[in-house]
Amino acid sequence: MTSKDSTGKAIHEGNKKQLLYIIKTGGNVIDDAESLEVFLKDFASITGKKILVHGGGKIATTIGEKLGIEPNYIDGRRITNDATIDLVTMVYGGLLNKKIVAALQSLQCNAIGLTGPDANVLPATKRPVKTIDYGWVGDIDSAGIDPAIWQLFLDNGLVPVVASLTHDGLGHMLNTNADTIAAVLARALSKLYHIKLVFCFEKNGVLEDVNDEHSLIAQLDTKSYAALRESKKLFAGILPKIDNAFDAISNGVEEVVIGNSRLLLQLINGTGGTKLVL
Amino acid sequence: MTSKDSTGKAIHEGNKKQLLYIIKTGGNVIDDAESLEVFLKDFASITGKKILVHGGGKIATTIGEKLGIEPNYIDGRRITNDATIDLVTMVYGGLLNKKIVAALQSLQCNAIGLTGPDANVLPATKRPVKTIDYGWVGDIDSAGIDPAIWQLFLDNGLVPVVASLTHDGLGHMLNTNADTIAAVLARALSKLYHIKLVFCFEKNGVLEDVNDEHSLIAQLDTKSYAALRESKKLFAGILPKIDNAFDAISNGVEEVVIGNSRLLLQLINGTGGTKLVL
Repeated sequence: MTSKDSTGKAIHEGNKKQLLYIIKTGGNVIDDAESLEVFLKDFASITGKKILVHGGGKIATTIGEKLGIEPNYIDGRRITNDATIDLVTMVYGGLLNKKIVAALQSLQCNAIGLTGPDANVLPATKRPVKTIDYGWVGDIDSAGIDPAIWQLFLDNGLVPVVASLTHDGLGHMLNTNADTIAAVLARALSKLYHIKLVFCFEKNGVLEDVNDEHSLIAQLDTKSYAALRESKKLFAGILPKIDNAFDAISNGVEEVVIGNSRLLLQLINGTGGTKLVL
Repeated sequence: MTSKDSTGKAIHEGNKKQLLYIIKTGGNVIDDAESLEVFLKDFASITGKKILVHGGGKIATTIGEKLGIEPNYIDGRRITNDATIDLVTMVYGGLLNKKIVAALQSLQCNAIGLTGPDANVLPATKRPVKTIDYGWVGDIDSAGIDPAIWQLFLDNGLVPVVASLTHDGLGHMLNTNADTIAAVLARALSKLYHIKLVFCFEKNGVLEDVNDEHSLIAQLDTKSYAALRESKKLFAGILPKIDNAFDAISNGVEEVVIGNSRLLLQLINGTGGTKLVL
């Protein structure tokens, strides 16, 4: 091997993007202490760079009811009023985020809890009022995400744990869907890292028949997704998740898997869930 | 100038410790939206490296009452039971911390909210049960504080905003006094930085007569403090604050000032409050 080859190889390896897992989990794990414990043990055991994005669960509704904060709907769409943004800031950004971070620290995973305004990691804009005023809901400014701040955390061994809250840069917290945060973040960091985006939920993946966990579709491409969507067989709640996922792989994210929270390590090693391909 | 001198100077400057402000604020500011706004504007305008440590305010009690969480006392000492640690984690670590961070971001101050488990910045131990079980109360493991993680944030232009919560490394959040956190952190970081520790509260500083804001003691040394303490003229609530402060300056912290939150910039520039000296 010549020194030129050797140098060439070194340079090549230096430019090779490192793997980064972005893993989103939701209410079904958050609401059940035992499921959460198992999930966090699995998450902590994953080697290499990783980010956890979490939403809230039923606990926000329960605490909201005790505080007299009624869920607010207009035309069937949930509205985030003043009381609700304070509630989710407390519950998602405080109670849940810190419980997860403390649990991960006890598992030797050097977690750091983040919301949108922290180090300005997730800048957003309050959703403009068209027919409905959604209240304090944020659409992420994807171009405004600074990959360098994420890299600072990741390259120093920190594991970001992101609650589904953004901010408007004017002093207001904003409520943002956790699936969307995971997908937008994956796109923004895909220039720096080889991204594997994993959406965890209560089903084994995308199912041909929503009532049959064995009807798992191991691999889904845009064409077969269009056909499935046409047939109206898919569970309605999974559609935005799949749309987010296809959007991500169309924009630089290498791999997206959707599957069961209880099988996180199988989703990671490619033996579980539904893998999305273009 | 010889090249040796020049090199020597460079080395000297490289070793010179940079100034770091550690500023603690409390309930009187937190409870009043207008006071908080003014305080954060002042804080944001301070140039250079800085950390803000905040406690909670009456809002935790108000929210606790609505949730049916009664303040719990044994022999006049407040106890942090399961419900209370969840409450303060939500309110201090979520609602207040994120409101402060979002407000600072709107003032072009690159704040990052932290609690004990985040990046393990404040490791602690649950207070051992002697005569009283204080519940989920943490005594900081000062030797366990890693100055390098704080330096990573500070040297990258981030402004830590610390809620008065620590963790035990076993997955539990712990309630810790904000004055103590500020003092212990100041000691731990004094090896790396020239520390100015500022305790903000509702009075102008240490007063000879607690009812007369004009009886400010501009400078207090340990000897005159002992005499004042003896005379029992001092406001009882200020004693732990002063003890924390003297402990800090006995252990490497360069300067400690105690004074009014509304006069933060005067406390910073040395024209307000009580300066403590050994």
